[in-house]
Amino acid sequence: MPVILRQLAEWVGGEVVGDADTPIDAARPLSDAQAGDITFAEDDRHIEQMHHCPAAAAVVPLKTTLTVKPLIRVGDPLMAFAQIAQRLKGPPPPPPTGVHPLACVHPTATIGHDVCIDPFAVIGPGCVIGARCRIGSGVNLGSNCHLGDDVTLHPNVVLYAGCILGRSVIVHSNTVIGADGFGYRPHDGRQVKVPQLGHVEIGDDVEIGACTTIDRGTFGPTRIGAGTKIDNLVQIAHNCQVGQHNLFVSQVGIAGSSSAGDHVVIAGQSGIADHIHIGARAIIGAMAGVHKNVPDGAAMLGIPATPIIEQKRILKTLEKLPKMRQELMQIKKALRLPDEPADDATT
Amino acid sequence: MPVILRQLAEWVGGEVVGDADTPIDAARPLSDAQAGDITFAEDDRHIEQMHHCPAAAAVVPLKTTLTVKPLIRVGDPLMAFAQIAQRLKGPPPPPPTGVHPLACVHPTATIGHDVCIDPFAVIGPGCVIGARCRIGSGVNLGSNCHLGDDVTLHPNVVLYAGCILGRSVIVHSNTVIGADGFGYRPHDGRQVKVPQLGHVEIGDDVEIGACTTIDRGTFGPTRIGAGTKIDNLVQIAHNCQVGQHNLFVSQVGIAGSSSAGDHVVIAGQSGIADHIHIGARAIIGAMAGVHKNVPDGAAMLGIPATPIIEQKRILKTLEKLPKMRQELMQIKKALRLPDEPADDATT
Amino acid sequence: MPVILRQLAEWVGGEVVGDADTPIDAARPLSDAQAGDITFAEDDRHIEQMHHCPAAAAVVPLKTTLTVKPLIRVGDPLMAFAQIAQRLKGPPPPPPTGVHPLACVHPTATIGHDVCIDPFAVIGPGCVIGARCRIGSGVNLGSNCHLGDDVTLHPNVVLYAGCILGRSVIVHSNTVIGADGFGYRPHDGRQVKVPQLGHVEIGDDVEIGACTTIDRGTFGPTRIGAGTKIDNLVQIAHNCQVGQHNLFVSQVGIAGSSSAGDHVVIAGQSGIADHIHIGARAIIGAMAGVHKNVPDGAAMLGIPATPIIEQKRILKTLEKLPKMRQELMQIKKALRLPDEPADDATT
Repeated sequence: MPVILRQLAEWVGGEVVGDADTPIDAARPLSDAQAGDITFAEDDRHIEQMHHCPAAAAVVPLKTTLTVKPLIRVGDPLMAFAQIAQRLKGPPPPPPTGVHPLACVHPTATIGHDVCIDPFAVIGPGCVIGARCRIGSGVNLGSNCHLGDDVTLHPNVVLYAGCILGRSVIVHSNTVIGADGFGYRPHDGRQVKVPQLGHVEIGDDVEIGACTTIDRGTFGPTRIGAGTKIDNLVQIAHNCQVGQHNLFVSQVGIAGSSSAGDHVVIAGQSGIADHIHIGARAIIGAMAGVHKNVPDGAAMLGIPATPIIEQKRILKTLEKLPKMRQELMQIKKALRLPDEPADDATT
Repeated sequence: MPVILRQLAEWVGGEVVGDADTPIDAARPLSDAQAGDITFAEDDRHIEQMHHCPAAAAVVPLKTTLTVKPLIRVGDPLMAFAQIAQRLKGPPPPPPTGVHPLACVHPTATIGHDVCIDPFAVIGPGCVIGARCRIGSGVNLGSNCHLGDDVTLHPNVVLYAGCILGRSVIVHSNTVIGADGFGYRPHDGRQVKVPQLGHVEIGDDVEIGACTTIDRGTFGPTRIGAGTKIDNLVQIAHNCQVGQHNLFVSQVGIAGSSSAGDHVVIAGQSGIADHIHIGARAIIGAMAGVHKNVPDGAAMLGIPATPIIEQKRILKTLEKLPKMRQELMQIKKALRLPDEPADDATT
Repeated sequence: MPVILRQLAEWVGGEVVGDADTPIDAARPLSDAQAGDITFAEDDRHIEQMHHCPAAAAVVPLKTTLTVKPLIRVGDPLMAFAQIAQRLKGPPPPPPTGVHPLACVHPTATIGHDVCIDPFAVIGPGCVIGARCRIGSGVNLGSNCHLGDDVTLHPNVVLYAGCILGRSVIVHSNTVIGADGFGYRPHDGRQVKVPQLGHVEIGDDVEIGACTTIDRGTFGPTRIGAGTKIDNLVQIAHNCQVGQHNLFVSQVGIAGSSSAGDHVVIAGQSGIADHIHIGARAIIGAMAGVHKNVPDGAAMLGIPATPIIEQKRILKTLEKLPKMRQELMQIKKALRLPDEPADDATT
């Protein structure tokens, strides 16, 4: 049965502008939309592209006036479009439940109800798996891991012994939680391993990307607070204490024993030195290198990181640096100041 | 039966200089070559090392004159040496074909002819696997993945549902394709997940290194163009549109919705911000941070990235910065300009 | 049976100060210590925190004078505390030995005594596994890998064909050793793969973190010297020759054919260009970019890396750069030098 624009608007509580009976086949983003599709636009730049887009209709912000095609106006077009796309696709098939005969579950593990454990997963002795957890194929849980309800571990995730995950945690494929921290003591020219006896504790609603590593504490826990979201290829070293509702973008690295308050954002490829505290609500720009404590609410950028307003001033002046040098030489000449022979006058 | 230099030269269409009957046992690079070996040199620096190398003979560029040992002169010594090394080693054993009894292939999957599926691999419902594909152990294909002919997935690669790979794609171990993009909406101090409903499309002849992550699009595809080569530990975020025949070196990160034309080179550890376009044939130097569109054919360097010629001028002047500051103070003194007390005169 | 402080001191050869009969329940770090625990302090900052810590006793450095609780004084409090923590925990259960019935071991592989091979591991043809090795679940060994005695491969590690690991090597989960190097030749606008025919050799007592990649050599070996420790998410490209007892911190990248002497330290997120030599005992600071050879014993920092003393001088001056520019303009004004109209006078 075909769907019309009015129905879509009802699903998301939006307002139709134009022909509410426009039939809609599918939901696709602007760059891929075809005739018969509904698409969406988040800002003015996208709305301009509407003129060249064959889509039959679009989800747009409340203030948008556009007459080239029928619209659904909503407060958050992206989220409304996501809802529409999901409903048009139909619900995903209900995940199977039960332990696959080719999974290895230790007899001392406790498995909640409606859990799905895929083939080639290994659940170690003493593990406790909450209700409705989904354990992908090739996942390995060391001994005594505890998973809250509704946890999803995608294929090939590894949890070392003793990891504790809260409810509704999602971990993407090939991420490793609880490996030994990088701790050695130099002794007679060799590096002697410091035993890594701690574990990892992850709060409710945390999501962790693919190929990320979170090391176990040396003696106590490495902690990730509830609601924090961590992207792919991130390194969180031993003993870190990360607050709630943080966002750590891809390829960020946080060295040992550092901590972050709540609502911290660290943009891509930034590095935080060891034993540093990042205050609550701080924002660390991309590719920054932080080696001092950051106060609550600060915005930092650069290597070494400084307040963003200072860093931008430095960066802007930096572009003029070769010119500044020429001016300096001009001034010295005008003043007949001696030019040291060791100095290279070419720039 | 021993091989002599003349035969090797025939294999690669090269010209022998010196004793063509020199017997050759094995092929080893300069640093490891032993008596009886053939080795190779690509440039003058390597050719100098020939004097101290026990190898019996060497593959060298066309213009090389060297009398210390017999030579094979060719246009591309590295590729000729690779051919020789492969032939001396003998062909690798033909890969086994068939589905290992300990692989889990969903009954609705379609498997091409002469496919090899190793133990502990999982092929989800609705997958289509082209002819002669090699699926390593521990590989996981989510539902409805499509693989062209001659695709190689090394052990423990994970493809989430709906990934489409062209012909002759190679993916190295522990790489994850199609995981959810890092998309959240702040709401009441929490991060609400934006559903990631898209997929990943990878063109023919793409090679992807180990432990690399390529996220699925939010609604449509993340795309990697034909012939593009991606190194280890690279992050390609959701919705990226990467052109053909690109080279992305290790630890590069490309943020969401960015795009690259054809024949782009991005050197190691560089970062590209979100919603950026890198023009065709552009070259991004190592450790660069790009946060503006890059025109076709441009060469960029630095954080933030500027045209390489400007960046080199900046970097060269930067070395002289402390000296410039001293000169400034000297000038101010000569001019009897006031020095503000707040300023720290030491460098 | 409860343990008292005197016994703990005997275990680690320490000196008791205060009540040697204090009963001890458990060992926890300062931030997590509870009543009845023993904790430890490494430096004055930690010792201050002792006043607010409910622990019953503490392991402290030799010189410490502190009267708030009984102490054990030792030369290396961290290592002594680790010993105590391990003994209080009791020994880990002896690892099981034997090949799990759901592991796939090729009949031509040679398995040493007391080896443990977990389920879903794959041991390829011609592999040789030393005594007491522990092969985690989901590990994949390509053909002809050689492991010395007492090697531990954590779950989902992948070794491509021909890797050679010395004695007591530890490799953490999802690390990939021996994947093809990133080698291509441009030809007619395409990238033609250079066959990667070499292998990887890893010395005794090397430890490698999680999600790290070490590529095979093009023709010969990529080498990691004995005693070297490598953190998570590190990239070591093809043909690298790494010396002994090095420390490479997380997210470091070393490009092709570079080498390092012995006792080198490379801090987090640094990059080393290709064909570079890092001299013995050199220290490369965090986030440095090295593209020239580094002499023995040098300490380098910055992008591009310079001797740390120079870099610190540059960084310090950099903070004053906007001010320097203002001063320059002031001087030009005082000297009535012309200001070019193209120049933007705002900072």
